[in-house]
Amino acid sequence: MSGNTFGKLFTVTTFGESHGAALGCIIDGCPPGLELSEADMQADLDRRKPGTSRHTTQRREADEVRILSGVFEGKTTGTPIGLIIENTDQRSKDYSKISEQFRPAHADYTYAHKYGIRDYRGGGRSSARETAMRVAAGAVARKFLQERLGIRIRGYLSELGPVRAEKLDWDQVHQNPFFCPDVDKVPEMEAYMDALRKEGDSIGARINVVAEGVPPGLGEPIFDRLDADLAHALMSINAVKGVEIGAGFGCIAQKGTEHRDEMTPEGFLSNHAGGVLGGISSGQPILASIALKPTSSLRLPGRSIDVHGNPVEVITTGRHDPCVGIRATPIAEAMMAIVLMDHYLRHRGQNADVAVETPVIGQL
Amino acid sequence: MSGNTFGKLFTVTTFGESHGAALGCIIDGCPPGLELSEADMQADLDRRKPGTSRHTTQRREADEVRILSGVFEGKTTGTPIGLIIENTDQRSKDYSKISEQFRPAHADYTYAHKYGIRDYRGGGRSSARETAMRVAAGAVARKFLQERLGIRIRGYLSELGPVRAEKLDWDQVHQNPFFCPDVDKVPEMEAYMDALRKEGDSIGARINVVAEGVPPGLGEPIFDRLDADLAHALMSINAVKGVEIGAGFGCIAQKGTEHRDEMTPEGFLSNHAGGVLGGISSGQPILASIALKPTSSLRLPGRSIDVHGNPVEVITTGRHDPCVGIRATPIAEAMMAIVLMDHYLRHRGQNADVAVETPVIGQL
Amino acid sequence: MSGNTFGKLFTVTTFGESHGAALGCIIDGCPPGLELSEADMQADLDRRKPGTSRHTTQRREADEVRILSGVFEGKTTGTPIGLIIENTDQRSKDYSKISEQFRPAHADYTYAHKYGIRDYRGGGRSSARETAMRVAAGAVARKFLQERLGIRIRGYLSELGPVRAEKLDWDQVHQNPFFCPDVDKVPEMEAYMDALRKEGDSIGARINVVAEGVPPGLGEPIFDRLDADLAHALMSINAVKGVEIGAGFGCIAQKGTEHRDEMTPEGFLSNHAGGVLGGISSGQPILASIALKPTSSLRLPGRSIDVHGNPVEVITTGRHDPCVGIRATPIAEAMMAIVLMDHYLRHRGQNADVAVETPVIGQL
Amino acid sequence: MSGNTFGKLFTVTTFGESHGAALGCIIDGCPPGLELSEADMQADLDRRKPGTSRHTTQRREADEVRILSGVFEGKTTGTPIGLIIENTDQRSKDYSKISEQFRPAHADYTYAHKYGIRDYRGGGRSSARETAMRVAAGAVARKFLQERLGIRIRGYLSELGPVRAEKLDWDQVHQNPFFCPDVDKVPEMEAYMDALRKEGDSIGARINVVAEGVPPGLGEPIFDRLDADLAHALMSINAVKGVEIGAGFGCIAQKGTEHRDEMTPEGFLSNHAGGVLGGISSGQPILASIALKPTSSLRLPGRSIDVHGNPVEVITTGRHDPCVGIRATPIAEAMMAIVLMDHYLRHRGQNADVAVETPVIGQL
Repeated sequence: MSGNTFGKLFTVTTFGESHGAALGCIIDGCPPGLELSEADMQADLDRRKPGTSRHTTQRREADEVRILSGVFEGKTTGTPIGLIIENTDQRSKDYSKISEQFRPAHADYTYAHKYGIRDYRGGGRSSARETAMRVAAGAVARKFLQERLGIRIRGYLSELGPVRAEKLDWDQVHQNPFFCPDVDKVPEMEAYMDALRKEGDSIGARINVVAEGVPPGLGEPIFDRLDADLAHALMSINAVKGVEIGAGFGCIAQKGTEHRDEMTPEGFLSNHAGGVLGGISSGQPILASIALKPTSSLRLPGRSIDVHGNPVEVITTGRHDPCVGIRATPIAEAMMAIVLMDHYLRHRGQNADVAVETPVIGQL
Repeated sequence: MSGNTFGKLFTVTTFGESHGAALGCIIDGCPPGLELSEADMQADLDRRKPGTSRHTTQRREADEVRILSGVFEGKTTGTPIGLIIENTDQRSKDYSKISEQFRPAHADYTYAHKYGIRDYRGGGRSSARETAMRVAAGAVARKFLQERLGIRIRGYLSELGPVRAEKLDWDQVHQNPFFCPDVDKVPEMEAYMDALRKEGDSIGARINVVAEGVPPGLGEPIFDRLDADLAHALMSINAVKGVEIGAGFGCIAQKGTEHRDEMTPEGFLSNHAGGVLGGISSGQPILASIALKPTSSLRLPGRSIDVHGNPVEVITTGRHDPCVGIRATPIAEAMMAIVLMDHYLRHRGQNADVAVETPVIGQL
Repeated sequence: MSGNTFGKLFTVTTFGESHGAALGCIIDGCPPGLELSEADMQADLDRRKPGTSRHTTQRREADEVRILSGVFEGKTTGTPIGLIIENTDQRSKDYSKISEQFRPAHADYTYAHKYGIRDYRGGGRSSARETAMRVAAGAVARKFLQERLGIRIRGYLSELGPVRAEKLDWDQVHQNPFFCPDVDKVPEMEAYMDALRKEGDSIGARINVVAEGVPPGLGEPIFDRLDADLAHALMSINAVKGVEIGAGFGCIAQKGTEHRDEMTPEGFLSNHAGGVLGGISSGQPILASIALKPTSSLRLPGRSIDVHGNPVEVITTGRHDPCVGIRATPIAEAMMAIVLMDHYLRHRGQNADVAVETPVIGQL
Repeated sequence: MSGNTFGKLFTVTTFGESHGAALGCIIDGCPPGLELSEADMQADLDRRKPGTSRHTTQRREADEVRILSGVFEGKTTGTPIGLIIENTDQRSKDYSKISEQFRPAHADYTYAHKYGIRDYRGGGRSSARETAMRVAAGAVARKFLQERLGIRIRGYLSELGPVRAEKLDWDQVHQNPFFCPDVDKVPEMEAYMDALRKEGDSIGARINVVAEGVPPGLGEPIFDRLDADLAHALMSINAVKGVEIGAGFGCIAQKGTEHRDEMTPEGFLSNHAGGVLGGISSGQPILASIALKPTSSLRLPGRSIDVHGNPVEVITTGRHDPCVGIRATPIAEAMMAIVLMDHYLRHRGQNADVAVETPVIGQL
C-alpha cells in the first residue's frame, strides 16, 4: 500500500491535493447503529479551520464536510462512510515560480525524487490541508468511543516556542486561540506571536493529548503496541518531529524505583507509563506529547536550488501559519481517537468472549 | 492482525515466549539472490546477547539462530525465510509467586486484562527476549541495504541516566560495553552502573540510530511517512517511551529560519529534518533517537496487587539488566533496517519505472 | 478490514449505495506518469451502462465519472486517485414494502443479520451498481498494462442460459448487445431473451475473460497465487457462483498426459493450465471463466418472510436486468486488470533487480 | 506481501520447502482460552498423510507437528502459535537432472522466471507438502468453530475422473481410502486407480466441502465476500483449477424462479446459493466444490525444455500420487475452517454489539 490508509479494522483512507477539486476520505469498518451527521464532524473541523484568529493563516477554507454514503436515516450502516470537502478557496495564481523551485524544509525536493512529477499547487498532497479529513474521520471515532465506552480525548498546546504552560486548566483550552490551558500564559503567547509575525519568522510548539476512560486491555503486545501505533499516528501528522508517551524522554534520567508506577487496590500511584504497559492500555489515562517544527513557508529569503540544480533564493509569499502547532490540537486528538477506535475493534475481534477475572483498579 | 507482523512488503512475523520452547520468525518478501547464512545474523545477535559484560544480565542465552527455509545453496530464493532460536536457558524454577502477582511497570496486569490468561514464566511474550528475532531479521535487511544500495546503519548509546556522551567517535562504539561513542565518558558510565547495581536500582538511557547512504525518495506521503513508520518501529521496542527524528523536541524552540535546512547545489546546509521531508527521504542521513525507561525488575520492594486485587510487596529476584538501554542498540538498528528495507521495496513496487530528472545534491 | 478494499499495492477502495448521494472510489498505489483523463474510464463505463439495448434494464444512469485527485496536468502523480459518480436517477419512490420484506436470493436477510440495520433503497450497498467504480478503477489498471507491458484484456459472454457460443470471433463481441463472440448465436439469444422477458423470468450466464501478453513471473506461490487472487476478484462480482482457470472443472476427467501442457523451444503445446503454473503466470494467455446466477428481482411472485418472520409473497417491480451476465463482461475484465496490475507491482517490489536467464518461450 | 499469509484477523503464515529442514507456520490472532495440544492437529494431519493406502504416494512423512509457542498449560494465550514439522524423509538423491529441466505442468519454469533462482529439490516451495501446515492451522480454527459455535466442517471426494459418487453417506467417507461417500462406487474407484497406476498416468478429481451450523451474518459485502474469500482460499490449494459455491456453474442454465431460494418461517426451501447471499452467510450450510487437476509428475515421458531452452524429454521418477485429489479433502476442509474463523473474528470486531432483531429461520 502507498500509505494513504490508517488502521486495520477501523480504517481511514484519504485522498486529495491542497488545490485540487476536493479532499475526500473513506472510513471503513465503522460499527453500525451509530448516530451520525455532518454536524458531528463540523465542530472538530471548525476548531482546526484557519482564519479563526490573527495568529493563524488568513486563508478562507469553508471546510464543509458532506457524507456521501454509509449513513442511512441518521445512523451508520456498517458500510463505508464516504466523506468529501470541496475545495473552494484555490485562488487562481501564478505557480510558475513554485513549479521551478524546491522550497527548503518542504516536500518539493523529495516528491520530485520519489515520483518524478508533482502537483506543486499549494504543496499538493504534502499540504497539511489533508489533515482536515483526518479530523472528520477522527470525529466519528471519538463519537463512538465517547458514547459507547465513555472515553474522552482532549488535547492542548503546552509549549509555544519558549513559552511554556505551567497549569492545566481544561476549561481554559477553548477560551483562547492557542488551545493553551494556562490562562496566565496567553498574553505572553500573544505578544510572542505578534512579534514573530512582524519578523516574518515562525516557531515550533508542543501539543499534549490525553485519553481518559480507556479500558484496560487495548493494544497488541509486539509491533502494534498501543504506544507504537500512537507514535505512528502522531508522527504522521505534518510537521511532527517527536513523540513521547508518559514520561517520554524524561525517563532517561529516571531510576526504576521512581519510574515504576506502583499499584494499590485503590489504583496506580503514578502514571509515568502514560497508560500503556507492554503495549496494552492499563486503564490509566493515555498521555502523549508531540513536537511540531516551525512552519517552513517564510517570507524571509532562504537558500535553495531550482529543479535544474541551480542555486536560488526562495521567498514564500501567501498566507501561512506562523506556528502550525496552534491548529494541530484537533488533528492530534483525531489521530488518537482513530488509534483507540481501531484497537478497540481489534481487541474485541480476538477477545470478545474472554472472561477477565482481574479486578480493575482505579485510575490515578 | 494481532500485531506480530511488521512491514508491508518486507514483512517480519515473530513468535515465541521467553521461557517457551523456541523463538521464531518468518521473513517474507525478501528479494531472491541475496547471499545469506546464519553467520550474517549471528554477529548482530551476539551484540545483543546478555552476559557480555558485568553491566548486563548474567543469564546465558546461546541465541543461536537457525535458517529453516528460504535459502538454497547459500542464497535467498524469494520464498519465506523461517528462523528459529531454541530456548536453552530456562532454569526450572518456582513460578508460584510470579503467577499470583502483578509486577509494577510490567505487562502482567495488562495481559491479564486483555487475554484473561498469561504465560507468566519470565514475562512470557512480553519479555524483551522476543527482540532477538528482530535482530536476526534486521540483519537480513541490513545486508541487502548495504550490499545493493550502500546504506549503512549504525547506532550508539548517547545518554545513560545522567551521563551524556559529548563526542561521536564511531570507532569507539564497539570498544566498550555501553556502545558509547565517547571514550571519555566510559569510566563515568562504569562507575555509575557499579553504584546502581549495588543499590539494586535501574536507570534509563537514550540511543541514537543513523542511516547513511539512503537514496532520496523512500517513504510515503501521508500515514506511512518514513518517519512515522520509524516511530512505529522504534516505539515498538520494549521499554521505549519516546522517539525523535532529527531535531526532535528541540524544534519546539527553533525558529523557521533556523530549522529549515537550506539547500545549495553542493548539498543541504544542515540536517534538522533528520533526513526526512514530507515523509520521504531526502538523501541526507536519517537520524532517530529513542528514550528507554529503566528496567522494572528490581530487587528493591515495590507496592502492587495480586491477581485477586489484594495489596502485595513485590521483589524481583533473578538476573536482570539494570539498564535495558545498553543492549538496545542492535535492536534499534535492526528496526531501522527493516523499515528502510520495506520502504525500498514499496518504493520500487510503485515507482520502479520513474525517470527522475531532479539532481541529487550532496549530503551534509 | 471490512472488505471494501481490493489489492495490496494497487488498491481499490469503493464506497456508495445504490440510491445514495454518490458512488466513489480511491485508487492507491498507481504509478506516476500515466496519462489519464475521465475519458479513459468512460468508455468502459459506457459498456457496462444499463439501457443500451432492450435486453438490459431501462434505468437511466449517466454514470459520469469525475477525477477528484491524483492527476495533475493530465498525468497521474502517484498520490491517491479519488473518483466519484453522482447518483442522478434515484426515482423517489415508496420503499415501505421493501423495507419490511426480505427478497428471496437477495442480501436483505443477510445484511439484516450482519448489521441489524440496512439501507433498503435499491439494495443499498449490495446493489451491482457498486461495480461501476470497479470498472472505472479497472480502466486505469488496463491502461497501464496496455501501454507499459502490452497486455490486452478482453472478455465475452460464452453462454446465455441454454444458448452457447461455439465460435470465438473477437471482432463480433462488440457488435451485439450480449458481448457474444459467435454471430450465429445472436438471433437465438435475442429470441431467448425476448421470451424470457415476456415470461417475467431471468437466466444465468457464463463470461470468459482472457489476458494476452502477460509476462511470465507474475503471481505469488502460496496463498496469493495469481489464480487464487483471480478467483477472489471474480467471485466478488455480484451474482458470480463459480470460477474456473484454464481447463477448470474439465480437468476432473483429464488424465495427466492430456492435461499437462508440454513445452518446446517454440512454445507451449496447449494451455489447459490457463496461463498459470504454481500460482505464477507462464507467459501464456490467462484464461478465466465465471458463472453468473440469474437475476433475483422478478415480477413472478416468490415466497419469503418479512422482517418480523411472517410469511409474505414478494413481487419485485421496477427495472431489472433479466440476465445480469449480459452487462458483466466489462466488470470481469476490470477485476482481471486490477489483479494483474497489483501483481505486477508486487512482483517488481520484490524482484525488480532479478536477472532472469530463463528463455521466454513463445505463447501457444 | 508475498502471499504467504492468509487471513486478516485469524492469520496463517507458512514457510518451508519440500526437502528443506522443516515446514512451519505462525497462527496469529487466535482467541485465548482454547484448549489445544498437538493431538488436536495430528488427527487431521494423519488424514492428509501419504502412504495410508496403495492409492497414494508411498513416501513416508511422519508429519509430526510440534507447538512452539502461544499455548500455556494446555490453553491458547492469544499470542502467536508457532508450529513446526521437521522434514525427515528427504532421501538424499541425485537432483542434477531436475535442476536442469523444467517439468511440464509444474512450477519450475514460472519460478525460474519470477525469482531467477529456485530450490528444485522435490519442487521446493511449490510442493503440496506445504499444505501440511494449512491442515495443522485449519485444525485450530475447526476446533474453535466446533466448540464455541457448533460449526461442523466436512468434505468428501465426489468425483474421481469418470467415476462419480451418487450418494452422500457421511458415515462412509472415512471408511475408504478415497474419502468417497458412496460405498457402491468404491470398488469402481479402486479398479480405476489400479489400472491408472499400471498405465503410469494420473487423473483429476472433485472435492466437496460443507460447513453446517454457520450463523447468519459472516462475510463482508464487497470484495471480501464470504464466497470470494472461500474461492481465494480453495483456489490457493495446489492443483485446484475451479471453485463453485452452491449451484455453481449449474446456475448458468437456471431460471431465476428456480435458482432463488425461497424462504418461509420454517426455513429456506432450497440452497442453490450455497449458504451465501450478497457475500454474507445466510445460516444455511455453506457448500463449496473444487476441481483438482491430475498430477503432473508422471513416468510417461513428456516434452519440455531445459534451463537453456533446449528440447528435452522429461520422465518423473520417484513416488507420486496418481490422484492428488484423494488426499485433498482435509486440506479443503482446513481452508474453509480458516476462512470461517477469520470472518467470525472480523464480524465480531465490527459488529459485536449489534442487536439483531431479525429472526433466524431454520436451515434447509
